[in-house]
Amino acid sequence: MRVSRLFLSTLKEAPAEAELVSHRLMLRAGLIRRLASGLYTWLPLGLRVVRKVEAVVRREMNATGAVEVLMPAIQPAELWQESGRWDHYGPDLLRVKDRHDRDFCVGPTHEEVIGDLVRREVKSYRQLPVTLYQIQTKFRDEIRPRFGVMRAREFLMKDAYSFHADKAGLDVTYQAMYEAYSRIFASLGLRFRAVAADTGAIGGTGSHEFHVLADSGEDAIAYCPQSAFAANVELAEALAPSGRRPDASETMRKVETPGKKTCEAVCEQLGCDIRKSIKAVMVHASGKLHMLLLRGDHSLNEIKAAKLPGMERLRLASAEEIKEATGCAPGFIGPVGLSSAVSIIADRSAAALADFVCGANEADYHLAGVNFGRDLPEPAIVADIRNVVSGDPSPDGAGTLELCRGIEVGHIFQLRKKYSDAMNIAFLDEGGKLQTVEMGCYGIGVTRIVAAAIEQNHDARGIIFPAALAPFQVAIVPIGANKSDEVRSVAEQLYQDLNDAGVEVLLDDRDERPGVMFADMDLIGIPYRIVVGERGLKNGELEFKQRREEKAANVRLEQIVEHVCSRLQAEA
Amino acid sequence: MRVSRLFLSTLKEAPAEAELVSHRLMLRAGLIRRLASGLYTWLPLGLRVVRKVEAVVRREMNATGAVEVLMPAIQPAELWQESGRWDHYGPDLLRVKDRHDRDFCVGPTHEEVIGDLVRREVKSYRQLPVTLYQIQTKFRDEIRPRFGVMRAREFLMKDAYSFHADKAGLDVTYQAMYEAYSRIFASLGLRFRAVAADTGAIGGTGSHEFHVLADSGEDAIAYCPQSAFAANVELAEALAPSGRRPDASETMRKVETPGKKTCEAVCEQLGCDIRKSIKAVMVHASGKLHMLLLRGDHSLNEIKAAKLPGMERLRLASAEEIKEATGCAPGFIGPVGLSSAVSIIADRSAAALADFVCGANEADYHLAGVNFGRDLPEPAIVADIRNVVSGDPSPDGAGTLELCRGIEVGHIFQLRKKYSDAMNIAFLDEGGKLQTVEMGCYGIGVTRIVAAAIEQNHDARGIIFPAALAPFQVAIVPIGANKSDEVRSVAEQLYQDLNDAGVEVLLDDRDERPGVMFADMDLIGIPYRIVVGERGLKNGELEFKQRREEKAANVRLEQIVEHVCSRLQAEA
Repeated sequence: MRVSRLFLSTLKEAPAEAELVSHRLMLRAGLIRRLASGLYTWLPLGLRVVRKVEAVVRREMNATGAVEVLMPAIQPAELWQESGRWDHYGPDLLRVKDRHDRDFCVGPTHEEVIGDLVRREVKSYRQLPVTLYQIQTKFRDEIRPRFGVMRAREFLMKDAYSFHADKAGLDVTYQAMYEAYSRIFASLGLRFRAVAADTGAIGGTGSHEFHVLADSGEDAIAYCPQSAFAANVELAEALAPSGRRPDASETMRKVETPGKKTCEAVCEQLGCDIRKSIKAVMVHASGKLHMLLLRGDHSLNEIKAAKLPGMERLRLASAEEIKEATGCAPGFIGPVGLSSAVSIIADRSAAALADFVCGANEADYHLAGVNFGRDLPEPAIVADIRNVVSGDPSPDGAGTLELCRGIEVGHIFQLRKKYSDAMNIAFLDEGGKLQTVEMGCYGIGVTRIVAAAIEQNHDARGIIFPAALAPFQVAIVPIGANKSDEVRSVAEQLYQDLNDAGVEVLLDDRDERPGVMFADMDLIGIPYRIVVGERGLKNGELEFKQRREEKAANVRLEQIVEHVCSRLQAEA
Repeated sequence: MRVSRLFLSTLKEAPAEAELVSHRLMLRAGLIRRLASGLYTWLPLGLRVVRKVEAVVRREMNATGAVEVLMPAIQPAELWQESGRWDHYGPDLLRVKDRHDRDFCVGPTHEEVIGDLVRREVKSYRQLPVTLYQIQTKFRDEIRPRFGVMRAREFLMKDAYSFHADKAGLDVTYQAMYEAYSRIFASLGLRFRAVAADTGAIGGTGSHEFHVLADSGEDAIAYCPQSAFAANVELAEALAPSGRRPDASETMRKVETPGKKTCEAVCEQLGCDIRKSIKAVMVHASGKLHMLLLRGDHSLNEIKAAKLPGMERLRLASAEEIKEATGCAPGFIGPVGLSSAVSIIADRSAAALADFVCGANEADYHLAGVNFGRDLPEPAIVADIRNVVSGDPSPDGAGTLELCRGIEVGHIFQLRKKYSDAMNIAFLDEGGKLQTVEMGCYGIGVTRIVAAAIEQNHDARGIIFPAALAPFQVAIVPIGANKSDEVRSVAEQLYQDLNDAGVEVLLDDRDERPGVMFADMDLIGIPYRIVVGERGLKNGELEFKQRREEKAANVRLEQIVEHVCSRLQAEA
């Protein structure tokens, strides 16, 4: 492709509304243009990247035995009423009336449509399992679309749906999809993690998210570099410290800590390790107050705490409630000498401490050398109520956890019989008995992947596309082609030769200044650049540079095609 | 692909609502399934055919230098208000309000969106010409969707838009698109005609329709087998007969024609050629009556007649009006002795007659041997007011016309400045002056082509796909694979070998009865069928049959792959 034919449209500055790096770069590089809030046109350069994603997704879906279909974007309300989602979906669902005043929606997902198809076509266990997928335009009427195609209203999605005679069959396909998704993101050259979306235990769970790792990601992920364990931080289990609690070796003493309301400040004053302090968080649940104890360097995980019996609708206690229960202002409260009306729940790590520091329930005072069972009762409840931190042992016992941030680009889910029960998607089993099917669904945000890939792969000069996603593999930049017949003819011949060798090559035929062309080719993230210049040609040489490299190498003109091909092959 | 993996779903009978052959066959063959009125899901088999169409369309679009983009399906109302179409489009436009009560539509076409893009991106004549296209889902809220995907509400369309500095540039791209469209339909293996959509004169016109020829087509087309001339019958010019009018050789006489109200009946009674009779049609326009004269075997073309001065809103005269003007009932009226209050307009063919038969303006009587200039004045106006018929001379002088019926699958159109004026799509010309662009648009009904192809290519057994459109090129049907290891292993090996040879092959691994498998493979229209049976294998032979052939040929097992490949190559 020649730049002059590409409808390339790069910008020096991104529009002010673009907050995220990928959004700015996609606008600047001319991958997308905004039509309206959350609606984007894919320009030729961007669409080529989308097609790369589609091709890999399609290849791996087909490899699992899934077959491609194409369902309408516009869906009749009746099916959504049958599944119950017409009432429950909320304003994200774009509802529309046709000319005959019948209700439809612009589909954000297709469980109902595929369910309706399968219940009509599948009669017998002999037709199961079956997995159908499509790559199709979806619409979600986000209340605040932002970040470009990362959170757009209209977007391309691969959605797959599998149907099974039993749970064992669903498990097999679920596992195959897990592996296919892993191959997809690996093939695209992305650093990613499959994240358990519920309990955090790998295997046997009903839902995994696939995250592209990027510092700007919306989700915090805990993962184990030594194993496949990964989970949302909110869901990753913090194990109890190994070994038994040390014996008490200090006597409890009261220390004056004027104005020191945090464990950090108190421990700094006392010269003690913050990991030997306990912070108390007072919460209200089921009509009474509870004091939650956490190690000073840990933070409360409200989701975990809320899963304990009687804690379902917990909220932080007010300053007045705290004062009433402890006689003291927040900042100095602690578990020693507490009224029995307040129940104590200790995190596993807090419960394992001896000789610890905690609030004295008296303004400007803390206690040190405190020990459970001696200075206060053993906590009534010990549970996992904190967020994991970097260095925690992995729940699978395989190493220690690291934290990172991710962008969700895929989600696989065992729907089980949620839709098949509601919509009566049934089949005759081997014994001739009518059964409802087990169902799974598997989504990939095709257009979102492009943004996530850029979020993960860029530098100050622009996008750095992984080879598998790049719209072109090689850019040819001729210097002074309008003044030098040799430069032009070598560039043209090279363009021809690389095309003939099956390389996707972009020839910058704009006769712009070198700086403009270099900047544009860097901005749009083409993995390799070849500069054709008069000076190099005098020595029979061209400049060859990988996008991430700072310095170009000189390559003999007669070896350049082979050189390019071997580099590309080495990367593939 | 194995049939067991294809989600193949054939039907013995089509649902009753399917009127058109293609609709019935697409349902029976399991290419599509109905979701709701005018909304269809493409099943795996059908989607493969759609993808074949897309690939050819994309290839030929790219070959013209057009570049692919992808625009949102949901479009903001503001742009449609700017172009004026928000008010004028009518209820076919599916309008929708988002959660913030802003107006949008589900796009039936994208002139506004692409116009908005181009006016933002294109500043200078140096960026012109440019042609952008997409293959994308469209929605038209048809009042009565029918004929399956032929007239669906949601459909896939290739829409291209070109932008030019001047009319000459538009003409160049228009011609390139004309040729690309011709290559597309030829590549797809379809019999088609490019039809001038306005004047019928080839070249220099601003609009052509591309029709797939089929007896069931909605449009009647006149074309010249000896040239490229083709036009809608309504628009094709009927030339004046060549040579001068013969001299009068008979005397006018009145003949009794009791109850004979048509030229056919009168001429049959008189034993004269209907092509020597004149029928009179009384119409009302501009406040007065006009008698239109046509040769007895011709029919009035109201569109042509309405183009004559003063005839814009013509309507047929009522029986009362006819009686008042001629003193006679319809069926016996004629131009002789007519009141001068009624003006006479003669079709060119009628005006060229001598010694003709016509109504006598008296019930049950006609006149014979009538001659213009002797028995009545020469007609005040002679014009082309009839439909062309088979055998008429082609307007381009290259031969004689034939009639056929067609299904419109493509349309190319010179929009000129309709949108660029309304939306101010402008550029700076070489002299630095602001100019609005010339614009063209070019549509292809991608999903409609599949239906049209079937309408053109089918027999009593089902679909006969042209090779370029077939979802698979070859079907392997093993007979008794469940009883014979040899049959199964030969079929599996052949499946492998053909796949390896790059042939798209479908293996019927259902172990159904031969009749069921044969019927299904014929129904779904696979071009070639190979039968693997025990009897043939005894002689080292397989049965090979083309879909249109009645008898299979025996081919040696060791030669079958080569045989298939050479047949496919010969057809490509």
